[in-house]
Amino acid sequence: MTNLKLRAFIPLFYLVWSDDLLTQKEFLTLQEFIGSQNWLSEKEKELLFSKVNVLNPPSREQLIDWKSEVEKIIQDKPSVRCIFDISVMLSGNDKTIIDLEQAFVKLENDLGILGEEVIGDFKKNAIIFTSNYKAVKRFDTEILTQILDGEQAKIIKKVKSVISRPEFAYETSTNTDVYREKVYDWCKILAEENLGNMAYPKQYGGGENLADYFAIMETLSYHDLSLVIKFGVQFGLWGMSIQSLGTEKHYIKYLKDIGSLKLPGCFAMTETNHGSNVKGLETTATYNHGDQTFTIHTPNENAQKEYIGNAAKHGQMATVFAKLIIGGNDYGINAFIVPLRHANGKVLKGITIGDCGLKMGLNGVDNGTIRFENVIIPKENMLDRFASINEKGEFESPIPSDNRRFFTMLGTLVGGRIGIPRSALAAAKSGLTITIRYSDQRKQFGPEGGSEVPILNYRMHQRRLIPLLAKTYAIHFALQYLTNRFITKNESEMQEIEALAAGMKAYSTWSTRDTLQECREACGGKGYLSENRIDALKNDTEIYTTFEGDNTVLMQLVAKNRLSEFRKSFGEMDAVGIINYVYENAKTAISEKNPIITRKTDDDHLLDDQFHLHAFLYREKTTLASAAKRLKKLIDGGLEPYDAFNVVQHQMIDVSQAYLERIILEQFQAAIQFIKDEKCKGILLKLYQLYALSQIERNKGWYLEDGYLEGVKTKAIRKMVNQLCWEIRPDAVSLVEAFDIPKSCLAAPIALY
Amino acid sequence: MTNLKLRAFIPLFYLVWSDDLLTQKEFLTLQEFIGSQNWLSEKEKELLFSKVNVLNPPSREQLIDWKSEVEKIIQDKPSVRCIFDISVMLSGNDKTIIDLEQAFVKLENDLGILGEEVIGDFKKNAIIFTSNYKAVKRFDTEILTQILDGEQAKIIKKVKSVISRPEFAYETSTNTDVYREKVYDWCKILAEENLGNMAYPKQYGGGENLADYFAIMETLSYHDLSLVIKFGVQFGLWGMSIQSLGTEKHYIKYLKDIGSLKLPGCFAMTETNHGSNVKGLETTATYNHGDQTFTIHTPNENAQKEYIGNAAKHGQMATVFAKLIIGGNDYGINAFIVPLRHANGKVLKGITIGDCGLKMGLNGVDNGTIRFENVIIPKENMLDRFASINEKGEFESPIPSDNRRFFTMLGTLVGGRIGIPRSALAAAKSGLTITIRYSDQRKQFGPEGGSEVPILNYRMHQRRLIPLLAKTYAIHFALQYLTNRFITKNESEMQEIEALAAGMKAYSTWSTRDTLQECREACGGKGYLSENRIDALKNDTEIYTTFEGDNTVLMQLVAKNRLSEFRKSFGEMDAVGIINYVYENAKTAISEKNPIITRKTDDDHLLDDQFHLHAFLYREKTTLASAAKRLKKLIDGGLEPYDAFNVVQHQMIDVSQAYLERIILEQFQAAIQFIKDEKCKGILLKLYQLYALSQIERNKGWYLEDGYLEGVKTKAIRKMVNQLCWEIRPDAVSLVEAFDIPKSCLAAPIALY
Repeated sequence: MTNLKLRAFIPLFYLVWSDDLLTQKEFLTLQEFIGSQNWLSEKEKELLFSKVNVLNPPSREQLIDWKSEVEKIIQDKPSVRCIFDISVMLSGNDKTIIDLEQAFVKLENDLGILGEEVIGDFKKNAIIFTSNYKAVKRFDTEILTQILDGEQAKIIKKVKSVISRPEFAYETSTNTDVYREKVYDWCKILAEENLGNMAYPKQYGGGENLADYFAIMETLSYHDLSLVIKFGVQFGLWGMSIQSLGTEKHYIKYLKDIGSLKLPGCFAMTETNHGSNVKGLETTATYNHGDQTFTIHTPNENAQKEYIGNAAKHGQMATVFAKLIIGGNDYGINAFIVPLRHANGKVLKGITIGDCGLKMGLNGVDNGTIRFENVIIPKENMLDRFASINEKGEFESPIPSDNRRFFTMLGTLVGGRIGIPRSALAAAKSGLTITIRYSDQRKQFGPEGGSEVPILNYRMHQRRLIPLLAKTYAIHFALQYLTNRFITKNESEMQEIEALAAGMKAYSTWSTRDTLQECREACGGKGYLSENRIDALKNDTEIYTTFEGDNTVLMQLVAKNRLSEFRKSFGEMDAVGIINYVYENAKTAISEKNPIITRKTDDDHLLDDQFHLHAFLYREKTTLASAAKRLKKLIDGGLEPYDAFNVVQHQMIDVSQAYLERIILEQFQAAIQFIKDEKCKGILLKLYQLYALSQIERNKGWYLEDGYLEGVKTKAIRKMVNQLCWEIRPDAVSLVEAFDIPKSCLAAPIALY
Repeated sequence: MTNLKLRAFIPLFYLVWSDDLLTQKEFLTLQEFIGSQNWLSEKEKELLFSKVNVLNPPSREQLIDWKSEVEKIIQDKPSVRCIFDISVMLSGNDKTIIDLEQAFVKLENDLGILGEEVIGDFKKNAIIFTSNYKAVKRFDTEILTQILDGEQAKIIKKVKSVISRPEFAYETSTNTDVYREKVYDWCKILAEENLGNMAYPKQYGGGENLADYFAIMETLSYHDLSLVIKFGVQFGLWGMSIQSLGTEKHYIKYLKDIGSLKLPGCFAMTETNHGSNVKGLETTATYNHGDQTFTIHTPNENAQKEYIGNAAKHGQMATVFAKLIIGGNDYGINAFIVPLRHANGKVLKGITIGDCGLKMGLNGVDNGTIRFENVIIPKENMLDRFASINEKGEFESPIPSDNRRFFTMLGTLVGGRIGIPRSALAAAKSGLTITIRYSDQRKQFGPEGGSEVPILNYRMHQRRLIPLLAKTYAIHFALQYLTNRFITKNESEMQEIEALAAGMKAYSTWSTRDTLQECREACGGKGYLSENRIDALKNDTEIYTTFEGDNTVLMQLVAKNRLSEFRKSFGEMDAVGIINYVYENAKTAISEKNPIITRKTDDDHLLDDQFHLHAFLYREKTTLASAAKRLKKLIDGGLEPYDAFNVVQHQMIDVSQAYLERIILEQFQAAIQFIKDEKCKGILLKLYQLYALSQIERNKGWYLEDGYLEGVKTKAIRKMVNQLCWEIRPDAVSLVEAFDIPKSCLAAPIALY
C-alpha cells in the first residue's frame, strides 16, 4: 500500500484473518468501518475492501508480510499499548489517523479485541514473568526431613532401607494370586526384620515401642499399599486385638508367633449386614455349660463376616466378634479366638471361606468372607480382659453396661485410627512428590513466539496443588500430635483422644482422596498410566475413607462428643440460655470489640496467626453452639431426638470439621515455634499461612453468612492465597524432596529425572 | 430402694454407668451432687454413693433393672421430655424432688446430657419419621424414560437390546490381552449391526444420522466403557477425521471399510511433549517434489505419538497430524493418512509401536505410542479439505492463516466433545442407579430398640446423592440441547457451539467424577468390590476429564470466548467504561430496584424459576465483567497480557462455570415446559429446583461476597435444599429406574434384588 495512511489498517487485516476468536461477523464490522470513513476515496475504499473479502482471502504470504510489518514497527517500543498506536506508527504518524483515535478504539471493541492482549503476540522480546519462574533451592531439605521425622528418624531410615531392597521391586503382574503371595512374602521379610512386633511387649519378643510402630506403618506406605494393609491386619488388627482384649494366657500363647508371622490371623468384626453399626453384629458365641466351650455360629447369610483381610488365603486364626449367649440371654458383643485353617492351609471343619474377589484396589490383600457353622472353641479362647465367664458359668465384667463395655473394647483398638490416617498421608505425599516434580518440568503452551512454560507456573495449576501441599504438611504435624497424645494418654483423656483419632482419620483420608484426585488430573494422560503409580495410590487409598469407620459416620460421632463436651462446659445456666450466651457473646466479641476487623485487609493482619486462630476458634464455637441450639429447638418443638439428630446431620459435619481444623491449625503453629533453622522455619510459616487462609477461603460462605468476614476481606484473602501459591512455587520441589521418599518407591518415570 | 425419694436418682445412675459419652469425671460430678443435697440423711447419702463408686460397679442385672424401671414409668407418656420428669415420677411425685428442678437440670448439663435425647432411648413406641420413610411409586417411569430418550428412543432401544445379549457378558479376566480382544470382538458385532457407521453418508454405507450416532455412544456407555472408547476411536475419531478433513477420494476409498471395521484405524494427534498445546506438534510431513510424496518423521523421542487408541494392537492406519514442510518452510499442522500395519497385523517398515501398558482404567483399549522413521506416503494421503498442494508443488488453502486453519480443522472434530460428555453422563447414571437402589435397601443404625433405618433416609446420605441426581438430570437436558444445536448448526454459530461443547465436556465429565466418587463412598465396602462395578465406572471415566481436551484448559478457552463476545456486545463505549457500566448497573438492578430481594426467604420466592434464572444470569454477567475489568486493569498497570491472563486464570474458571450453569438451568426449564404428563412434570420440577438451589448454595460465598444474597437468604436456601432432598427421596428409586439401564449392564449384585 503506497498510501501510508492506508497502512493504518494492516493490523486489523492481520487480526481479522488470523485470530481464531474472530468470525465472519467481524468481517462485516470491518467492512462497515471502512465504508464509513469519509476521508477515504472510493478507490482507496475499494482497495481496502479487497483485503477483507471473505470470498477472496489474501495469500498466506501476504498475511506473513502484514505480521512482520507490525512486528518490525513495534520492536523495542514497549510503550506501545494498543492497536491504534500501531496504526498511527504504520501511517507514519499521519494527522488524519491520529484524529481517528475514538473511532479506532470503538472498532477494536466491536471486533471483540482487547488491543493490549493482541500486542503481546507481536512483541518478541517481552519479559514474561510466567515463563521465567522456576524451582530454586532456598533451604536445606535434609534439615526439613529431620524436622518431619523427629524422634522416629532412626526407624524411618531403617524401614526405607528395607523397602528399597531389590526384593521389594513392585509386582507388575495383574494376576491376583501372584500379587497376594508377593505381598505375603514381603510381610515375612518385615517380620524377620522385627518390624511387625514393634509394639508388642518385650517379654513376648516385641519392641515395646508404639511410636516406632506407627512410624513403620507410615513409612511402609511409601511402598505398595497392599503391603501396609496386610501388615496392619496381621500385626495391628490381629495382634493388637489379642494384646488389647486378651489377658496374659493369650499373650503367652500367641503374641510371639503373631509377631514372627508364624501365625497369620484375621480381625473378624464386620458382617455383611453390619459394617458401621457393629453393635448390631449377629454372629453368636453360645456358652456350653457342660464342656465349658463356646459354639460360634453364623445365624444367617448376611451375618457372615465380610471384607476380612488375610481370610481368603493366609489366615490361620481370627479374632471373631460375636454376641455372647449364656443360658439364652444375650450378653452383648465379645471377642473370641477362632481357628480357621490348619498350618498347611486347609480350612477347618465348620468354617466356610469366601473370596471377596477383585477390588478397586489393594488386590494384594486377600479379603474374604467367613461363615461359621456351629464351630466349637474352648473357653480360654474368649478374650477376657473386659468380660469373662466364671467357674460357675456366670458372666462377669468390671463394666456392667453391655453398651459401654463394647465401646470400651473398641476404644482399645483406636490405634488403627492413627495408623490409617498416617498411611493415607504418606500416600498423599507420594502423589504430591510425583505430581509436583512432573509439573515443574512439564511444559505446555507459552507466549507467542516464546518457549513453552512449566505447567507449575500456571496460577490455576498452583491453585490446584500448592494448597494441598500445605494441607499435607499441616496434617503431618497434627498426626504427630495425635500420636503423642495417644502414646502418653491417661484414662481421663481417652474419650477426647478417641474422638480426635476418629476425626483425624476422616480428615486425613478425605484429604488424601482429594489430593490424589487432583494429582491424577494435574498429570494429565501421564497420570493415567499405571507406571506413574497415581492410579495405585488413588485406588488403594480409596477404601481408607470407609474402613476403620466410615468417615461420614465418624464425623457424626466426633460432633456428638463435641456436643456433650459443650454441655459440660456450661452447666451453670439452662441449656438455651447458655447457647444464646455463647452465641451472642461470640458475635459481640467480633462486631463490637473489633468493629473494623471484619473489613481489615492489610497483609500483616491477613498473615497474622492470631487472626487465623481467632477465626478458626470462632467457627468452631459458633458451629457447635448453633448445632446445639438447633437440636434443642427441634426437640422442644416435638421432634423425636432420633429425627432431630437426622435433621442436623449436615451441621454436625461442620461442627467436626471446624473442631479438627482448629486443632490442626494450632499444632501447625506449635510445630513451627520450635524450629531453629530460620530458612526451614520461613518456608513452613508460608505453608502454614496458606493452610490457614485456604481453609478460611474454603469456608468463606459460612464466614460471610455469619458476618464474621465481609466481602472486601474474603476477596483480599483469595488474593493472598493466590499470592502465597505463587511465592511458594519455587520451593515446591524442595518441599516434596523433604518427604524423602525412596526413589525406588516413587518409581514413576515422570518423577524421576 | 425403698425410700421413694431416692428413686429419683435411678435414671442418673443408669446413664452414668451406661452412656458411652460419660467418663469418670462425671462420676465425680454426680458424687458431688449427692453430697450437696442437704435433705438426704448421711445413711441415704452412703447408699447413693455406693451406687456411683467406680471401684464397685453395679451388677449387669442391676443396670438392666434400672433401665426397665425407667422404661416402665415413661411408657405411654409421650409428654415426658426431660430426665427430671422421670425422677419426679419415680419418686412418686415427691414434693422435695419437685422443688429440686433447677438443681437437677443443672446436673444434667454438668453431665453433658441433653435429657430429651436420652429419653428417646427409653421410649419403645415412639414414632420415628426417619425409620418410616421409604421409596414410593408416584409417577410412571416409562413415561419419564420416553421424555429422556426423545426422538432417539428407537435406536436407544436397539442398542440396549444388542448389549444385553449373552455375548456381551462382561469380561472378568485381569489379563489385558484377553480383555482387548473381547472389546474388539464386541466392536465387530456393533459394526455388523450398522451402529458404527451411523453418522457416515449413505453413499458410503452409513446411516447419515448424527443424532442417532450420539445416542449410540451414550447408550453403549451403560456397558463396558472400554467398548465405547474403542468404538469412538474407530468410528468417531478415525472415521470422522476422514469425513471432516478429507475429500471425496478419501471417502470412496476408506469410509465403508472403516464403518464395517474391516479397516481399523487410529487418530494420531497427541504427542508426548504436546497434549493440550497441539499447535506445538513436532512430527513432520515433508513434501518431496520429485515423486510427489510426503515423508512422515518423528524428529525426537518426545515427538512420538502417545496414548493413541487402537495403536498398540489393532490399528492398520492412522490419521496423523504433522507439520507440513515444503521447501524448508513450515506450513503449520495438517493431517495425513499413514498406514501402520499389514492386514495380518505386522507392523510396517519405519513404524515403531509402543504399548502404553496398564492404565488406571479402559484397559480394554489398546493405547500405544507411534514413532515414524522417514515413512513415505503418497500425496493423495494428505487430508486436503482445508489445505492441499497443487500440481506445481505449492501450498494452497482457502484459509491463509496457519493458526486459523488449524483451529478450523479442530473445529470440525468437535463431535468428540459431545460424545464424551454424553458417555460420561451415562456412567454417572449407572453409578447413581446402583447406589440409590442399594441405599434404599441397605439398613444401618436405628433408634434404640427399633429396627434399623435405610441409609437413604439419613439426611446426610440424601445430601450426598440427591443433588447429584438432580444435576445429572439437568446435564441430560443440556447435552440434548447441545447435540441439537450441533446438528442443526450454521457457519456463524460454530464458535459459540464449539465453546459450549468444550465447556459442557468439562462440566459433565467433572460432574461424573464427583458423582462416582460419592457413589463409591456411599456404597461403603460394597462400593469397593469390583463386582459392583463402581470401580470400573470411576476408573474408566477418570481420563474423561483429560482426553478430548484437558478440562481446566477447556474452561480457559470457554472463558476467552466469553470475554471476546462480551467486548463485541458493548462496542459503543471504551472498555473500562463498559465494564463499569455493566458491573454497576447489575448491582443497581438488585439493590435499588429490588431492595428486599436479597433477604427474601419465602418458599414461593425460593422455588421461583425467575429468581433462579436471575441469580444465574447475574452471576454469569458479573463474573464476566469482573474478569474483563481485572484483566484490563492488570494490562494497563504494565503487566504483559500473557502474565495478566495467568493472574486471572482462577476467575476465568468461574466465568465459564457461571456461563455453563446458566445454559443448563435454562435448558432444564425449557425441557420441563413441554412435558404433558403432570406427575413426571412435577417430579422433574422438584429436581430442577434442587439443581438451581444447590448451585446457588455451592456458590453462596460468591453471592454473599457480592451482596446479591444476604446470610438470612443463603441459610433459607440451605434449608430448602435439605427439604427438597427429603421430598425427592421417596422418588429417588423411580428416578433412577427411568434411566432404564439394562440389568445385565448394571450387573452389580447390590443393585439387583
